Amino acid sequence: MASSFSDAVKRLLVGRPFRSEGRRAPALKKRIAMPVFASDMLSSVAYAPDEILLALSLTSLVALTVAPWIGVAVGAVILVIVACYRINVKAYPSGGGDYEVASKNLGPRAGLVVAAALLVDYVLTLAVSMTVFAAYITTAFPLLAPYRVPVAIIGILLITLAGLRGSRATPVLLAIPTYLFLGAVFLTMCVGLLRVGAGDIPQAETADYTVVHTGVQNEATLGLATVLIVLRAFSSGSVALAGVQTVATAVPAFKKPRGKNAGNTLLLSGLLAALMLTGLTYLASVTGIKYVDDPHLYLVRPDGSAVSAEYEQEPVLAQLAHAIFDNAPVMFYFVVLVAALVLIVAANTAVEGFPGLASRLARDGFLPRQLATKGDRLTFSNGILLLAFAAILLVIATRASATTLIQLYLVGVFASFVVGQAGMVLHWNKRLRLVIDPKARVRMHINRLVNGAGCIIASGVLLVVIVSKFLAGAWLAVAAMAGLYLVMGAIHRHYSRVARELAPEADGGSRTIPSNTHAIVVVNEINKPTLRALSYARVTRSSQLEAITVAVDEDSASALQRQWNDMSLPVPLTVLDSPYRELVRPLLAHVLAIRRRSPRDLVIVYIPQYIVGRWWEHILHNQVALKLRTRLLLVPNVVVVSVPWRLRSFSRQYGGDGPENDNPLYRQA
Amino acid sequence: MASSFSDAVKRLLVGRPFRSEGRRAPALKKRIAMPVFASDMLSSVAYAPDEILLALSLTSLVALTVAPWIGVAVGAVILVIVACYRINVKAYPSGGGDYEVASKNLGPRAGLVVAAALLVDYVLTLAVSMTVFAAYITTAFPLLAPYRVPVAIIGILLITLAGLRGSRATPVLLAIPTYLFLGAVFLTMCVGLLRVGAGDIPQAETADYTVVHTGVQNEATLGLATVLIVLRAFSSGSVALAGVQTVATAVPAFKKPRGKNAGNTLLLSGLLAALMLTGLTYLASVTGIKYVDDPHLYLVRPDGSAVSAEYEQEPVLAQLAHAIFDNAPVMFYFVVLVAALVLIVAANTAVEGFPGLASRLARDGFLPRQLATKGDRLTFSNGILLLAFAAILLVIATRASATTLIQLYLVGVFASFVVGQAGMVLHWNKRLRLVIDPKARVRMHINRLVNGAGCIIASGVLLVVIVSKFLAGAWLAVAAMAGLYLVMGAIHRHYSRVARELAPEADGGSRTIPSNTHAIVVVNEINKPTLRALSYARVTRSSQLEAITVAVDEDSASALQRQWNDMSLPVPLTVLDSPYRELVRPLLAHVLAIRRRSPRDLVIVYIPQYIVGRWWEHILHNQVALKLRTRLLLVPNVVVVSVPWRLRSFSRQYGGDGPENDNPLYRQA
Repeated sequence: MASSFSDAVKRLLVGRPFRSEGRRAPALKKRIAMPVFASDMLSSVAYAPDEILLALSLTSLVALTVAPWIGVAVGAVILVIVACYRINVKAYPSGGGDYEVASKNLGPRAGLVVAAALLVDYVLTLAVSMTVFAAYITTAFPLLAPYRVPVAIIGILLITLAGLRGSRATPVLLAIPTYLFLGAVFLTMCVGLLRVGAGDIPQAETADYTVVHTGVQNEATLGLATVLIVLRAFSSGSVALAGVQTVATAVPAFKKPRGKNAGNTLLLSGLLAALMLTGLTYLASVTGIKYVDDPHLYLVRPDGSAVSAEYEQEPVLAQLAHAIFDNAPVMFYFVVLVAALVLIVAANTAVEGFPGLASRLARDGFLPRQLATKGDRLTFSNGILLLAFAAILLVIATRASATTLIQLYLVGVFASFVVGQAGMVLHWNKRLRLVIDPKARVRMHINRLVNGAGCIIASGVLLVVIVSKFLAGAWLAVAAMAGLYLVMGAIHRHYSRVARELAPEADGGSRTIPSNTHAIVVVNEINKPTLRALSYARVTRSSQLEAITVAVDEDSASALQRQWNDMSLPVPLTVLDSPYRELVRPLLAHVLAIRRRSPRDLVIVYIPQYIVGRWWEHILHNQVALKLRTRLLLVPNVVVVSVPWRLRSFSRQYGGDGPENDNPLYRQA
Repeated sequence: MASSFSDAVKRLLVGRPFRSEGRRAPALKKRIAMPVFASDMLSSVAYAPDEILLALSLTSLVALTVAPWIGVAVGAVILVIVACYRINVKAYPSGGGDYEVASKNLGPRAGLVVAAALLVDYVLTLAVSMTVFAAYITTAFPLLAPYRVPVAIIGILLITLAGLRGSRATPVLLAIPTYLFLGAVFLTMCVGLLRVGAGDIPQAETADYTVVHTGVQNEATLGLATVLIVLRAFSSGSVALAGVQTVATAVPAFKKPRGKNAGNTLLLSGLLAALMLTGLTYLASVTGIKYVDDPHLYLVRPDGSAVSAEYEQEPVLAQLAHAIFDNAPVMFYFVVLVAALVLIVAANTAVEGFPGLASRLARDGFLPRQLATKGDRLTFSNGILLLAFAAILLVIATRASATTLIQLYLVGVFASFVVGQAGMVLHWNKRLRLVIDPKARVRMHINRLVNGAGCIIASGVLLVVIVSKFLAGAWLAVAAMAGLYLVMGAIHRHYSRVARELAPEADGGSRTIPSNTHAIVVVNEINKPTLRALSYARVTRSSQLEAITVAVDEDSASALQRQWNDMSLPVPLTVLDSPYRELVRPLLAHVLAIRRRSPRDLVIVYIPQYIVGRWWEHILHNQVALKLRTRLLLVPNVVVVSVPWRLRSFSRQYGGDGPENDNPLYRQA
């Protein structure tokens, strides 16, 4: 039921409020779960090589041949982190991810830090995926090149709408793009490597271009700068790790044994991602691809002229496909479109994953309680809308620059890695104090070592990102995390305070019951809803029962009185004067008078309420009842009973038992 | 209590929800009522002469000396219409104005036409008054000349805000500007006439300017065009009549005998308005004031050059003050500022008068019912905001052109005059059929004659306005009236249909009572609100009583169960499974199961509700309760009881009895 106009608009977009039975998704086999949940991680090879090349383009000192080695380094880190999370998901298979690990081992504050980081991450997963999606779409359709921002926004809106409608695509449908993408990338890599092996080295379009370096590089800072740039390239490439968290929180969706299956999925997708990243960076370096931040400034054609203003830089994967399949352009389009598709699946994990985290945070009292019940589509709509709104803002603010967004992204991703892994180290410390079995202890020692290594590596990346990109945008991610941390903390404190306030006293002081009940039926006109309220009030057998009407209009009040007498209704009607044409105040005064007369009585006010079928009918009905209800609830020892009457318009709209006057459910009085 | 964020914002602007006692304004003496309610009418001399001169400027054929005669003609019409309304207010002293007259004599459709016209008029009273206000303000402060539109909008916003806050200025305060204005205008007129009499004829700044006529005027159409232009000048000047309706609807505010006092006030202000209008147009003609639609196009300096782009045309009254007090500029500022002041008072009548009409329309079922109780400030806020919004739109759309707005205004004003006077003629016809006393019959015949004359004159003006200005904007007024007419008709039909649907059956078929009651207390946690709900449920002595909790989280559900047993509460606790972490659906299913088992029982669901003190607490509390309530009310034979618990934050914010746990009002169970 739409309770207001805005609700009606929402329903138009989101669909009818759910009546269908809640479905729990069936547990997924690995071959389906892997592509769905790892899509985020695997799709990162559609933009991670670009970030590596881009970072390296900042200096002429490092040969582009360094790129593959950075790819290898990132691949190695992927494997370390994946190893960490294989341990995590086995130790905490409930899908709480780093939030659970940090909360349980480092305390609620650390958990809150992770939660804030993960919430920021969801926004950025959506923003980054759709920004890169827009880049691939404009590569396939160069006509759209000037509309990159709108394309990204439309993408976000469509995914949001799909998430809001809850018409979740079946996992199989979501698995297809990921497999296609894997196929496309490996095909590209194989053909590329074969050609390289055969000596027929493909040349990228940008192979003959030159990258201009504007930075002044004096001798003294040269070495340091180069180290920093390599570190930057490495940390930027680490964005490939962002998707690890998605798998870690999806554990409950796996078939049993969940922890093990999820762990193996992580391992498999980690291996695939590392392999693809290494392969692609190698091929990019061999084919001579140039990728810079601003091609109009930094890229020069072979003839020495700057690239034209219309020049749109293609993503590295697209350039590779161009070069490798230079005699089969259809393959180029296949690779590009499949990359766009897999990015949609990756973005979708954010919209789908968000409710789970929100639900967990709400249950722990860090978010409004109504978010705790995951099944409630309408409640989550608000969260998803917020998510989409933030993502759109980011896309607009960065003008759909993946590079900028990725720096923000890295902050959230690695902040949660660091805290999560630190938590795991403590977890093993605790366990080691309890366990004596030497074999188990060895395993735990190894686990602690792995988690510790993960924590150190993640700290390093986080440090590099924050130091090198703080002013360029990373501060925004830090600020957003800090803001969320504070708000969630405040919510938690509020709930705790209220819980203390409401705790029942040990002596049962609050378990008192009123001595008598005084029932009041509010009558505005004599109609079926009023008569029903009267019947209901009579069946509850109060000590006293009266009907009350407020004489807003004297003529109609006396007409009402006359009609009441004519119908010989079994309840006395009291007419309250209202010299100022008010409805609420005289009634309130009457209730207060009853309260003064018998302060230990419970006053029960029956108010008929119309259940309507169309949004605009809300404007015409119930407004007075609503106001009366709100006002009466402020008076101590008063409860308000809403007696519903479904109008025909409701039954027509929503089915049900038809107009209630045809309802044979009541016996004659 | 703010029930949402928007409410909170509103409260910030509008003030706290009223707790103060509703005040009925004391009945006003004529010397206070006249300036307050006639301000609209009297202030019209600040712009009516301008419209006459402007209309006449369209042709060179009619000498400007015609202007005073048009002033006289308008003055005469004012007296006729005032005579009509003296009759009206005596015959219908309840303040219903033309709406009442038309409804009672010509049927509800005619009444609806008048109502639509009057609603449009309220918007235009506000828009016209503040547009002219802006013109006077920019005359006093030429620096503001480019900001006429913002000045008018700020004026509307301030008056709206004052109206919303309901901090009604005392009538005495409102009377002062009107008296000052009367004083200023008569002083100007007297000094002017004395100087004319003494032969020292003041010359207006624009006296030596020439008006250019661009219209091609051939011999054949010349005569007709001139007649039309004179008619236009006459009808434009008739805007001075707009305020008559304001007095007619203010009758209940007068001291008794209300009809007579209001009638005399009308007569007095009519005489004053007629006198001022005649005097001012005469002086404008003597001092040679030129007033045209677009000075840059139509006004030429004595040396033959066009006026500069910076030239701002002053209102006629301001030009007169300039010319007449040419050696006392302070008087010019006095006149201009006092005119601006009186226009504020006039605009205020729209904001103050609107609720009265809306209340009457709501009581007759043409507007949403909640508007019927005039005393409810918050409800009217919506209406007033709508009024202000429409007025601001008009000011922007016409770029604060008083001339355009006045044409729209005339449509509404004279449409209601025509219908109202036609209604009065029928009224006298009816009365004449019933009365035999010859003296009374003579009076009635005279009244009928006067009302008939008023109807004919009003029809004439309406015709001229619609014919001459339909495409230039009058269509907008007609369309707005038609739209309102249709919407109000639809609302009325809806209410009638629902009333028929809900009418109790003659055989008392709907007076049935359920056989048993089945009470359910919804428990989320064991706290004071829950215990209170339990106590209240127990005191109503249902046939069956159970507490129900939904196991959204299995651990906490079993903890709850344990605590329940430990406290040995006298009511059994049922735990409902919720495999999908839902709260609402399992509860709904449970209620439906009860309904199936015993379809003739009444199910009473008790839901604790928190009464909070700060708007943001609404986000953190009650959302689930609200959803549950909405959903449960859709099930037949279910009522929902809201059991309020005021949080400390509420008591701190709004006083009251302090935290409820200190409340010694309940006896021990």
